[in-house]
Amino acid sequence: MKLPLQPLLFWRRVGKSLSAEAGRRSMCSKAMRLVQFCRRGEEGVVRVGAEVGERQGVVDFKKFDSSLPSTMKEFLEMGEKGIERAQRALSSGQFVVPWSEVNLLPPVTSPDKVVCVGMNYRDHCLEQNAPIPKEPIIFSKFPSAITGPFDDIILPDESQEVDWEVELAFVIGRKGKRIKEEEALSYVAGFTVANDVSARDWQTHRNGKQWLLGKTFDSFCPLGPALVITTMLKDPHSLGIRCRVNGTVVQDSNTNQMIFNIEKLVAWVSKFVTLCPGDVFLTGTPPGVGLFRKPPIFLKKGDVVECEIDEIGVIRNTVV
Amino acid sequence: MKLPLQPLLFWRRVGKSLSAEAGRRSMCSKAMRLVQFCRRGEEGVVRVGAEVGERQGVVDFKKFDSSLPSTMKEFLEMGEKGIERAQRALSSGQFVVPWSEVNLLPPVTSPDKVVCVGMNYRDHCLEQNAPIPKEPIIFSKFPSAITGPFDDIILPDESQEVDWEVELAFVIGRKGKRIKEEEALSYVAGFTVANDVSARDWQTHRNGKQWLLGKTFDSFCPLGPALVITTMLKDPHSLGIRCRVNGTVVQDSNTNQMIFNIEKLVAWVSKFVTLCPGDVFLTGTPPGVGLFRKPPIFLKKGDVVECEIDEIGVIRNTVV
Repeated sequence: MKLPLQPLLFWRRVGKSLSAEAGRRSMCSKAMRLVQFCRRGEEGVVRVGAEVGERQGVVDFKKFDSSLPSTMKEFLEMGEKGIERAQRALSSGQFVVPWSEVNLLPPVTSPDKVVCVGMNYRDHCLEQNAPIPKEPIIFSKFPSAITGPFDDIILPDESQEVDWEVELAFVIGRKGKRIKEEEALSYVAGFTVANDVSARDWQTHRNGKQWLLGKTFDSFCPLGPALVITTMLKDPHSLGIRCRVNGTVVQDSNTNQMIFNIEKLVAWVSKFVTLCPGDVFLTGTPPGVGLFRKPPIFLKKGDVVECEIDEIGVIRNTVV
Repeated sequence: MKLPLQPLLFWRRVGKSLSAEAGRRSMCSKAMRLVQFCRRGEEGVVRVGAEVGERQGVVDFKKFDSSLPSTMKEFLEMGEKGIERAQRALSSGQFVVPWSEVNLLPPVTSPDKVVCVGMNYRDHCLEQNAPIPKEPIIFSKFPSAITGPFDDIILPDESQEVDWEVELAFVIGRKGKRIKEEEALSYVAGFTVANDVSARDWQTHRNGKQWLLGKTFDSFCPLGPALVITTMLKDPHSLGIRCRVNGTVVQDSNTNQMIFNIEKLVAWVSKFVTLCPGDVFLTGTPPGVGLFRKPPIFLKKGDVVECEIDEIGVIRNTVV
């Protein structure tokens, strides 16, 4: 079952966490919150656009300029040219689909990679008495795990220990290999919110201790609500980050607790692999996950999980 | 540096390993060896086709029928309809690109998943004194690791322990979740040869013992030479499988040594994730890898690695 989109609720929450500065900047020409969406009644037809405010809706790029693509990955592959045309679309004030007709999809789908980082918050290492890693710990999810910002998290029969993990995610905007730290941010198209949903039994006791299966059940990577372009954030390493389960705050930290920052992660991973437009990075979770509570708490059917990051927004997923 | 394609050498090798039965069946209407390729001088333009024999070349599907797609993934998404049109293209005897103008690409690129299975050969478990796993051990490579059947394996500065692993690979032909074992083969479009190149230092000692990084350096998944459609193989669980390094046989076993067969792997993985057309499975390697030799042997620049499976063919990659 899909939850109905609640744009007003969503915007109220974003509004709360948007700083005055970010609010001001959201009016400037470089400000853009990119989305993938479909129109209600046209499920399956993916569109790319950008938000045009709390009361309005989403501008449909392809309606403005038929040469613009209909997936975020292809849009990002266009580089600066895509961004420029998108800004023209946004400025036009035309082709706006009202919120009531918008069904938000994950801001990016079918990336080549979903790169995840383990143990990347100082305070999360402390909560489990684990040493601070000397190198990033990289694992992955399959792209098929990605689901929308207001879609359901499907509890699989195979796990009794499904846990939440709010994470700052970023998306690669251009191809690169062996990227230098000082140039890394220019490879990042933007930021979004992720929930690195994790089946702890599979992650830690099964599958030869390889984390993949526990991390990659279908729907285990809610993503959204929008891809906030990099130039719009004052400092991605200084954002409040929190998770609520049924309204109770369970994680509450700041991205300044990250051990390996965004530049270091881009440089590190691109030593191994070529990064491509659309690749998604999940940068690790702060303390407060269910596994390390005493006693541990895991998700059950009916729970509502909200993951929120200042200046980016909130995703809200019901466990079914 | 790209190695020049050597179609005659390739066909001679395939010829050697093709049984008389398979040879006969390759003439029947259901026989098809699907490929992705580009024409020499048109690098970057991906085409889908099928082999038309040792002396001839590859039929270009899109030239025969412009409604056919230009990537294998899209072709597989068409299902039976695609296969039928492809058979018409093959029977037409037209639009054949001669081998001298063909540059073979990996038979599938940009899949949603590269699913890998660890410790899946009885004899490979024995060589390392490891117990036979009770459940499949699943890990992954990023799709960016996939490279062509005659492309170079790039030795990264970051590893001193790069090893070979010949594996039977199969490709999913239609979408499915919680697939039953008895229906599993109907989800498999075909088979190909893979080399699960592995940086042992990264796989076993670094990255928090998560295998991903050691398995996913660029070029660490040579694949090909063709996708042999499922109906063409008498029994995928009874194929000679071997690897040669600089002409010396280093792995020599049979797919009948697999612990979890293809049906079990499809059923197992599809409990966790939705399988999609184009998804690639690497089914594990037999004994003879460099790591367990005494002393261990690892790949060095200039080495030529050939991975061969009866009835499917050989891939040949130079380490650079």
